[in-house]
Amino acid sequence: MDGSIAPVLAEARPLAILAGGGSVPLIVAAAAQRAGRPFIVVGIRGEADREIEAYRHRWVGWGEVGRLLLALKATRTEDLVLVGRIGSRPDYHGAPLDRGGVLARPAILRIFSGGDNSVLLGAVRLFESRGFNILGAHEIARELVVPAGWLGRVEASPRDLRDGEAAFAAAKMIGRLDIGQAAVAVGGRVVALEGAEGTDGMLERVAALRATGRVTSHGPAGALGKCAKPHQDLRVDMPTIGPETIRAAAAAGLAGVVVEAGRVMIAEREATIRVANSLGLFLVAREDGDGARA
Amino acid sequence: MDGSIAPVLAEARPLAILAGGGSVPLIVAAAAQRAGRPFIVVGIRGEADREIEAYRHRWVGWGEVGRLLLALKATRTEDLVLVGRIGSRPDYHGAPLDRGGVLARPAILRIFSGGDNSVLLGAVRLFESRGFNILGAHEIARELVVPAGWLGRVEASPRDLRDGEAAFAAAKMIGRLDIGQAAVAVGGRVVALEGAEGTDGMLERVAALRATGRVTSHGPAGALGKCAKPHQDLRVDMPTIGPETIRAAAAAGLAGVVVEAGRVMIAEREATIRVANSLGLFLVAREDGDGARA
Repeated sequence: MDGSIAPVLAEARPLAILAGGGSVPLIVAAAAQRAGRPFIVVGIRGEADREIEAYRHRWVGWGEVGRLLLALKATRTEDLVLVGRIGSRPDYHGAPLDRGGVLARPAILRIFSGGDNSVLLGAVRLFESRGFNILGAHEIARELVVPAGWLGRVEASPRDLRDGEAAFAAAKMIGRLDIGQAAVAVGGRVVALEGAEGTDGMLERVAALRATGRVTSHGPAGALGKCAKPHQDLRVDMPTIGPETIRAAAAAGLAGVVVEAGRVMIAEREATIRVANSLGLFLVAREDGDGARA
Repeated sequence: MDGSIAPVLAEARPLAILAGGGSVPLIVAAAAQRAGRPFIVVGIRGEADREIEAYRHRWVGWGEVGRLLLALKATRTEDLVLVGRIGSRPDYHGAPLDRGGVLARPAILRIFSGGDNSVLLGAVRLFESRGFNILGAHEIARELVVPAGWLGRVEASPRDLRDGEAAFAAAKMIGRLDIGQAAVAVGGRVVALEGAEGTDGMLERVAALRATGRVTSHGPAGALGKCAKPHQDLRVDMPTIGPETIRAAAAAGLAGVVVEAGRVMIAEREATIRVANSLGLFLVAREDGDGARA
């Protein structure tokens, strides 16, 4: 490989940011830079935003990830953040893998045959077994999570807040079974639970249920609840909302959004709050009633 | 009203069948006829099948249901079956209600503002408060439910049967919260939970998740699980499958269907089994592991 990372400082361990899509890898890179930490962004081709090129970076295909990271590790980069959206499960049956084969095909296939959670935990185990120390994006960019409290200007009616609590509780319940991490309640009734379709897909469904009269209310009502699964590895798999989530909740006719404090990432906090304010949705972070879990 | 029902026999109490859509009201009418029971089918206009006209019948709009039933009750018809699909929640804000107003507008609005379950329980309470004895369709036509056992010719692989168990358990769980009564598992993972979209809507979603690669398998795999909610009033609100459910499960790439024995209605049993056999889906009824209820 060409390029090398900055000299190691005892008090600032070099960091590799393995970047998927979206803005979060850029937020992590900016936070690392502010902290004066030497780092390199390893952009996954077809996934990561081109803006990573503002930082020291490398582009790699899925098949080269393992080899590149091992080369980095040889230069004493042991801290690794896996961050950003992965648009689709990589097709490892067809993808060219590097001959070094440190990410051996059978191990990868095993990882990607499980649920979303097992995919990521598998990747963590694989890199940890190679001596990497996996950090969460929010451990580098602390602004990605929020403490309990109201985030926007819009207040919730008692009824909508009850829906938010019902949706949150339902999301927690299905999270315990590793099924999903979000739910929607309207008018005292849980109308949608997230499965493999994801939060955006679920919100589209609620919009369709409203359009066909299966879910009704006078004006915006109800709420999205989103939380982490009890045993979710927040270093690599933190539930995330952003401006698009708020827009989708508004399109679904909801009055607001309840997220778990400290355990749900808000990808673009300012933009998210601005959109919630302008669309008239409440946005609140709350602790999990069952007590915090790390 | 014109027409009157047959003379009352002490051993064969007259019966009114309030009929929504689909074939089940016809099955109930045929069973009542076989039993030599005097009965009238009250077809809800826009919902019930025209084939009810093969029996003594009346057509009524939503707003006339209450008045007609009270008139029937005056002729000593006290047993009532509420059966059949209701295509959409009646718009009571706009519908013409009968002046007698026995189904008073506020009571109806209250009923229809709740979840599906509360709608039906509300209707039951309303008719019971007027002295009707509500019977389940399966109490007249016992062939509508099935005991535990295999229904078709297709056997399940151990893996698909495990998916069926996982889907069944997930369906039970969300049923306890009055959210839904069905779920889908594929490859050891629950991928969809039923909300307000209903079982057919959920199966369409699984088909879409397969089409977009969010749910994958080599060939048909996984199963639909469907069961009654623990506190479901099976007289008026029995979960139902039929040939279309099997076709939808096949379109979703599933290998089979697991239903709860005695508590899920099979609307057209022979056709359902025939379709399952021809499409290669297994179909099995099982007891709720938590023990039978009501």
